Amino acid sequence: MRELTLETTRRTEFVEITEQVLEALGDPGDAAAVLIYVPHVTAGVVVQEPRDDDTVAADLAMAFDRIVDDGWPFTHFEDHEQNPWSHIRAALTNSSVVIPLVDGKPALGTWQGIFFCEFDGPRTRRVLVSTLR
Amino acid sequence: MRELTLETTRRTEFVEITEQVLEALGDPGDAAAVLIYVPHVTAGVVVQEPRDDDTVAADLAMAFDRIVDDGWPFTHFEDHEQNPWSHIRAALTNSSVVIPLVDGKPALGTWQGIFFCEFDGPRTRRVLVSTLR
Amino acid sequence: MRELTLETTRRTEFVEITEQVLEALGDPGDAAAVLIYVPHVTAGVVVQEPRDDDTVAADLAMAFDRIVDDGWPFTHFEDHEQNPWSHIRAALTNSSVVIPLVDGKPALGTWQGIFFCEFDGPRTRRVLVSTLR
Repeated sequence: MRELTLETTRRTEFVEITEQVLEALGDPGDAAAVLIYVPHVTAGVVVQEPRDDDTVAADLAMAFDRIVDDGWPFTHFEDHEQNPWSHIRAALTNSSVVIPLVDGKPALGTWQGIFFCEFDGPRTRRVLVSTLR
Repeated sequence: MRELTLETTRRTEFVEITEQVLEALGDPGDAAAVLIYVPHVTAGVVVQEPRDDDTVAADLAMAFDRIVDDGWPFTHFEDHEQNPWSHIRAALTNSSVVIPLVDGKPALGTWQGIFFCEFDGPRTRRVLVSTLR
Repeated sequence: MRELTLETTRRTEFVEITEQVLEALGDPGDAAAVLIYVPHVTAGVVVQEPRDDDTVAADLAMAFDRIVDDGWPFTHFEDHEQNPWSHIRAALTNSSVVIPLVDGKPALGTWQGIFFCEFDGPRTRRVLVSTLR
């Protein structure tokens, strides 16, 4: 298993990590799939479309902030953090994504990339990358 | 790995593909699980309830269209497509689903079927089906 | 493959099942990952934060009840059940979660636990736990 670290820069942010995942994957031999796992409760992972102008990532951030409203009657508040909504947004994404491998490469579609989903940034975050046979 | 193709017929549509997945799976030998992967950024896959009257599929389409409102201030517009909301709806479903196999068959519950989730149809779409040990 | 059963007590409820999953997993030998699968269409599984005061679980239940409104024009009603919204809420979580194993233990982050998501309780429910190589 390999581990990535990344620094997020905004409260809600979709950060493409396709290159880092490919690097961590290295030569997977005859593995059947890659497993990408996020060990955080206010973050997740999705497969979506990278754009040079980042419009899809920006739309995702805008939309998740609207789907879960900061003004709802949340109960989980702590002295050191004010992030109850970030848990719900994370639960709407995935803690794990599994992508089949073809000739040792993730079978991503033409428009697909792998995105880390930050819902309580800025923070230093980890992503685990391993293979399945 | 096997590949399905399907034709969707509406903008937002939940299409059952259980039979096609079983056919693509064939005899999986002693594999432990089946991996179903959607290589698109405006579509996904979920496990839900097939009905002869398609009411659950219709409710899913209605609800995803409401959870993500077409009127939000999206930024991702292109000349050839007007689909920023479809990326968000897809991100709320899954690009991959993994189902354990028992005696070579997916361990689907009594009421479960596998659904392709179209959020930018009608289109020709692909689904990848592979096995994990 | 091992199977858990649990009894849920409320209509919408996030129940931590980390201990039961670990027990079902037992000694996984050199398996690479654990697959947790929910064979129900009005329930799911997510990785989220267990709290002694259950505030995160309570916020998740509150939020999923708001994201999908009981008052939307659903069509799936049956004599013996009135639960069209529960299918949509379930589709927003996951039927399967895959967690990598390190030294035979799920590589859960510091704040992570595994939660069964009930959207049509109270009911008796099943969860399947198996390993992937």
